[in-house]
Amino acid sequence: MRGKFISFEGGEGGGKSTQAARLAGYLRSKGLEVVETREPGGTKQGEELRDLLVQGDPNRWHPYSELLMMTAARVEHVNRLIEPALEEGKWVICDRFFDSTLTYQGIAGGLGLDVVRPMQQMAVGKTVPDVTFLLDLREDAGLQRAEKRGGAARFEKKEAAFHRDVRDGFLALAAEDPKRIVVVDAENTFDAVWQQIEGVMQERFKL
Amino acid sequence: MRGKFISFEGGEGGGKSTQAARLAGYLRSKGLEVVETREPGGTKQGEELRDLLVQGDPNRWHPYSELLMMTAARVEHVNRLIEPALEEGKWVICDRFFDSTLTYQGIAGGLGLDVVRPMQQMAVGKTVPDVTFLLDLREDAGLQRAEKRGGAARFEKKEAAFHRDVRDGFLALAAEDPKRIVVVDAENTFDAVWQQIEGVMQERFKL
Repeated sequence: MRGKFISFEGGEGGGKSTQAARLAGYLRSKGLEVVETREPGGTKQGEELRDLLVQGDPNRWHPYSELLMMTAARVEHVNRLIEPALEEGKWVICDRFFDSTLTYQGIAGGLGLDVVRPMQQMAVGKTVPDVTFLLDLREDAGLQRAEKRGGAARFEKKEAAFHRDVRDGFLALAAEDPKRIVVVDAENTFDAVWQQIEGVMQERFKL
Repeated sequence: MRGKFISFEGGEGGGKSTQAARLAGYLRSKGLEVVETREPGGTKQGEELRDLLVQGDPNRWHPYSELLMMTAARVEHVNRLIEPALEEGKWVICDRFFDSTLTYQGIAGGLGLDVVRPMQQMAVGKTVPDVTFLLDLREDAGLQRAEKRGGAARFEKKEAAFHRDVRDGFLALAAEDPKRIVVVDAENTFDAVWQQIEGVMQERFKL
């Protein structure tokens, strides 16, 4: 039986990685085989592309080149890791997937969903998450949490509008596809957030 | 005054590089500044992507990843080299441009023009060739010429259909856009082909 594909999305500071790890442990405790991954994710090709993207001057790639390269890394991730795992009956948990690209590049980055969405559809084919947890946080709450982790330098004042656009972008995607994308209020405590995630998983997949 | 942008297209063995070099010399003799380039062309970013594409197992990239990466290289080529040169009034001669991607990936490679064309339009924006010379050759004539150059190994029997698709693909693009794409019969002698190119250049640009 084909496994299930779960992605976690949202701005920074919302606790995606921690909740993803907790979900992995929970599923394993139910006897399921779980693959935890993140983009560009565990393929040699994806890492090579990632290395090119992060090396050197942050502006050395045109925004459209960046989109093309990130999408190429996703094609490899899907075809070599995610889809084969699902076919083997494993459950796959991915920290960020195409909704991040739709939001960061398409909406907040200004390339436009009409440009970004068909490319993502072509890139992933049928490998669409069964459930996506959007860990939603007001941007100032995200800022406070990231500051505590020492990440404040990334939240320059001029970036505040960008982060607001990111949040609004994710929420707009969720409003379009409420069956797949579950919005979770990440301003709640870690345990309250987890209980909501656990409840959705039990209800959807009869765990 | 903005320079002109000329591309050369066609299958292998049609003499693109030689005719492109002759055109460069001819334009320089008219006192014009000329940039000769080829894809991925003279940008560090393009070369890095090209290195990733050609390294290792030829099948290590998914065809759609390959398209995305080639297109990213083109974005950099256009934005860092071709468009700035044109803006400085230089004439740019490019050995292969987006028509090769439309033909090889979109038509012969089976990804479809509906997938490949919007991506190319987004990649190049207004930087579309003023004239494209399609050096057209029957595939068996191309084979014979390539054999003389020792390239016969590339023309396996099973590739014959692919090469026919490539030729048909280029001709279909030319039929759609006959104003930009000039079909030149590359089975003529080198000098006869050159005279046709020279004639078109004189007529279009009053050289």
